[in-house]
Amino acid sequence: MVIRLGANQYGKAEVRVVAVDRSGPQHSLVDLTVSSSLRGDFAAAHTDGDNAHVLATDTQKNTVLAFARDGVGPPEAFGLRLARHLAGAYGWISGARVAVDSHGWDRITVGGQPHGHAFRRDGGEVRTAVVTVDGDGSGADAHVLAGLRDLVVLKTTGSEFWGFPRDRYTTLAETRERILATAVTARWRYTVTDLDWDAAFGTVRTALLETFAATHSLALQQTLYAMGEAALERCPEVAEVRLSMPNRHHFLADLSAFGLDNPDVVYVAADRPYGLIEGTVLRDDVPPAEVAWLGTPGFC
Amino acid sequence: MVIRLGANQYGKAEVRVVAVDRSGPQHSLVDLTVSSSLRGDFAAAHTDGDNAHVLATDTQKNTVLAFARDGVGPPEAFGLRLARHLAGAYGWISGARVAVDSHGWDRITVGGQPHGHAFRRDGGEVRTAVVTVDGDGSGADAHVLAGLRDLVVLKTTGSEFWGFPRDRYTTLAETRERILATAVTARWRYTVTDLDWDAAFGTVRTALLETFAATHSLALQQTLYAMGEAALERCPEVAEVRLSMPNRHHFLADLSAFGLDNPDVVYVAADRPYGLIEGTVLRDDVPPAEVAWLGTPGFC
Amino acid sequence: MVIRLGANQYGKAEVRVVAVDRSGPQHSLVDLTVSSSLRGDFAAAHTDGDNAHVLATDTQKNTVLAFARDGVGPPEAFGLRLARHLAGAYGWISGARVAVDSHGWDRITVGGQPHGHAFRRDGGEVRTAVVTVDGDGSGADAHVLAGLRDLVVLKTTGSEFWGFPRDRYTTLAETRERILATAVTARWRYTVTDLDWDAAFGTVRTALLETFAATHSLALQQTLYAMGEAALERCPEVAEVRLSMPNRHHFLADLSAFGLDNPDVVYVAADRPYGLIEGTVLRDDVPPAEVAWLGTPGFC
Amino acid sequence: MVIRLGANQYGKAEVRVVAVDRSGPQHSLVDLTVSSSLRGDFAAAHTDGDNAHVLATDTQKNTVLAFARDGVGPPEAFGLRLARHLAGAYGWISGARVAVDSHGWDRITVGGQPHGHAFRRDGGEVRTAVVTVDGDGSGADAHVLAGLRDLVVLKTTGSEFWGFPRDRYTTLAETRERILATAVTARWRYTVTDLDWDAAFGTVRTALLETFAATHSLALQQTLYAMGEAALERCPEVAEVRLSMPNRHHFLADLSAFGLDNPDVVYVAADRPYGLIEGTVLRDDVPPAEVAWLGTPGFC
Repeated sequence: MVIRLGANQYGKAEVRVVAVDRSGPQHSLVDLTVSSSLRGDFAAAHTDGDNAHVLATDTQKNTVLAFARDGVGPPEAFGLRLARHLAGAYGWISGARVAVDSHGWDRITVGGQPHGHAFRRDGGEVRTAVVTVDGDGSGADAHVLAGLRDLVVLKTTGSEFWGFPRDRYTTLAETRERILATAVTARWRYTVTDLDWDAAFGTVRTALLETFAATHSLALQQTLYAMGEAALERCPEVAEVRLSMPNRHHFLADLSAFGLDNPDVVYVAADRPYGLIEGTVLRDDVPPAEVAWLGTPGFC
Repeated sequence: MVIRLGANQYGKAEVRVVAVDRSGPQHSLVDLTVSSSLRGDFAAAHTDGDNAHVLATDTQKNTVLAFARDGVGPPEAFGLRLARHLAGAYGWISGARVAVDSHGWDRITVGGQPHGHAFRRDGGEVRTAVVTVDGDGSGADAHVLAGLRDLVVLKTTGSEFWGFPRDRYTTLAETRERILATAVTARWRYTVTDLDWDAAFGTVRTALLETFAATHSLALQQTLYAMGEAALERCPEVAEVRLSMPNRHHFLADLSAFGLDNPDVVYVAADRPYGLIEGTVLRDDVPPAEVAWLGTPGFC
Repeated sequence: MVIRLGANQYGKAEVRVVAVDRSGPQHSLVDLTVSSSLRGDFAAAHTDGDNAHVLATDTQKNTVLAFARDGVGPPEAFGLRLARHLAGAYGWISGARVAVDSHGWDRITVGGQPHGHAFRRDGGEVRTAVVTVDGDGSGADAHVLAGLRDLVVLKTTGSEFWGFPRDRYTTLAETRERILATAVTARWRYTVTDLDWDAAFGTVRTALLETFAATHSLALQQTLYAMGEAALERCPEVAEVRLSMPNRHHFLADLSAFGLDNPDVVYVAADRPYGLIEGTVLRDDVPPAEVAWLGTPGFC
Repeated sequence: MVIRLGANQYGKAEVRVVAVDRSGPQHSLVDLTVSSSLRGDFAAAHTDGDNAHVLATDTQKNTVLAFARDGVGPPEAFGLRLARHLAGAYGWISGARVAVDSHGWDRITVGGQPHGHAFRRDGGEVRTAVVTVDGDGSGADAHVLAGLRDLVVLKTTGSEFWGFPRDRYTTLAETRERILATAVTARWRYTVTDLDWDAAFGTVRTALLETFAATHSLALQQTLYAMGEAALERCPEVAEVRLSMPNRHHFLADLSAFGLDNPDVVYVAADRPYGLIEGTVLRDDVPPAEVAWLGTPGFC
């Protein structure tokens, strides 16, 4: 029997960096949570406690902070700069993964005008980017995933669920009318590493939102597929979209014991259990790139 | 030695009820988390397990659902209806407290138009209401607190902190320029039980936001006081405002070891510990009503 | 109309301090989360941004760390030292509140022996202490609350619920057999400030646990009262016990649609809503001390 | 351009089921959170909203509850029964994944004796099992992962970190003495589907704990590898172990400004950022089985 080290990586998780641009009267800020991971030859650290190859996670954190000094830009671009630097730092490092969560802030309105330096967190939704450089960072070996999570949406009509198979354990009634609610996690892979990242993100996000709203849904799977399809149709640089959408059940309350009807008015929102629908929508003519998704939580 | 029962209450916590209005082409919804508590003579349940006075918490939940059938309206109004019903349900019930958290939803925009039945959760901020009926619900014994929590705000300038005393354990440097960030929890007490609740809530919320933005801050206490003062000035029906504002520290990163300056650009956002500033701003000429605040978490 | 500042306090929340004792071959550690608040004359900070009276929260944090250097001891004792120091620091400080959460660690067993310097977190339960010094710290003006939270307990039998009133909204069936589960939050007030704190804590905790187990429960209120009563009976230095006990419902699953019976075997554990039972058990012959409870979250 | 559906799965997440055994005077219980996912031909649901192949997630939940009626046993065994049933339910289902979290309960001690029907949650640690049936469930196509998460451990000595490379962004000092703390997530793959699951789990868990304690650590990677190696050495049915171990930093407090030394006594426990060390330890002579890990969160 031979025991050996298999796949491994390490890094610094959740560096909370805020960068402010005060160059004009209207300040702006970016608010990021950055995690980096390195892959390569770290065998000696595992087997002998020899750290000669271990770029300290503290150093990775310092690198994040230092790179923010030069301007951050879109999370995808910041991730690319960091991942290329880390992947190329030493010969024994064969790849780097940088994940960036971006937290949005809106300007506070004062007297009808957007304020120059006061902001309000715009909610729970998070914009995400994951950049993987698979190689030493010198060439075209970078992969960019963009995405979002905690985009919570709900429809008060336009959702049905019927025609499913019935076995011994099936008690669910068919319905032609239900609330459909979900918290969208979406990640999409670009085929390029140079793009107007903010514009592309906006295009895809709008496609997801508008399609959720406009699709008459016979199944959450159908809504998921239509959302992914719309993203691919509207943004040619996107190769594939992976979606994870919990079905947050809203049960029509039974009020008959109280002498009341309930014509689709009062619902109970349930926490657990919940349905979980996960799927990929992709272009046939783009080669896969599984390394881009390595270590990314969620559907895979 | 005599051991006896002291203050006590019981109820159902966190009933998740969603009510939909489909009466027109533009649907609307309210999304609430409702908790009720009863006070009164429940001694026999404690000492003898005699439940003759214990209106089941399941019954309280059912009451919430049934009352939602008739239309919900603002959270303050829904809380008043419920609290009056519960407080008057039986002679041994001497009071009821109903807390309502309201979760907001915005319409999704499709093709530039607000959609009729598709919505997006508008973020982490929660509108709160706490209604206490201290008596049997028949008279003017009701108290209404409105409020909000998780309103996260930040200023990129206009905040200083200096002039504080220095003792053996003081190492903090004085600063004329810092990021000021906090998550506002505010609760305010109305002197009336009949009001345009949504309008009053909007007035106070705007006062809080605008004052946070406009106040040049020498201390978070100063900002807190100014916010409470503005709420009282703009809304005459408010008797007092209680604010709890954590100081979410953003530390300027020291980049000098990397040969970089940092002219108020890169900050590290800290999780813990945090400052916690809590205070009440009130009118001198309004009698206090401590029963309105009984059992309400947060500053007291 | 005169608007003025009402009650207020401020401090540093959630300082995470770990103190290690390596003086012998068997190391030990205390793992605390400490929060301090000051009360006094801080009006000028609120109205004018004048910080001359504001002992910085950063200084409070430093004080916590420095005091840990001298040995920590039980959380009640550490809280007393800190609160007395803070309350007596300056003439304008009229009181201090120090809350200490203590996180337990067990020794890891290796080869049947407890290891000298390796530990495992012993679970989610937290021991709590809240010390309030109401005055300048020089005299007998200190109050000590001990407590625990997240003590999750369950009984598979020995719990009934019947005999409750039935109104229009009551649908709950009576039961002579149910699962009873709760997460106990308990706080108790001592009449003394000098005690074997660890022994007293152990006595009360055992009283709570044993009484939960041994009480045949007709109502969760009955269990709560019996638990508080036992604590008071076994620990003469305890003046009052405040308990908050959510009723974590376990619903017997209805398996009849699948041709199965369910003789109290399969239950569904529900998250929300939950019952919430709160009560105080106290000695008749001890004067109240409401200041000891000021600002303490939970039942009041 | 052709857009098409890629990999997809769906199921019911987080069914909270508690099963009680009252057959003897000493009751016992299992407390599980069960999630199921199906893979197969669900294309029509995505493209046409045709649910003829969609075994409802509500049906999956019912199946979990019904199967618990027959006795649950170890989580691995319960997962196998469920996954085989679901994978074989219909011809279009090509595979099923069942994840089981098991929450432990200890008996409450009363008067020195373990109580027959009163229990206390034994902490935050969770035992996990993931069973994947890749096929119709009829043959030897099942894979079993066991594991645990939230096993929080700490060493007060016996940990060093030095000899790492220093680049422009490296400021970390080398240390021969530090606190090492982590929350272990471990998952291991068995080569068999018939085993004394509880005994094997206990063997691996003990190997992980004892090795964490006994290893003098020069790097968290070294500790991780030693833990995985010990698990493989002690349990021949384990083919590979995947570990994810955050480095929960404890920083020695600098007390020099207060005129105090700090000889490894007072530490500040940090929340974020944290190091994150992930690695696989495996046997050379066992074929890989990536399908067993598909969709399992954490390191991959």
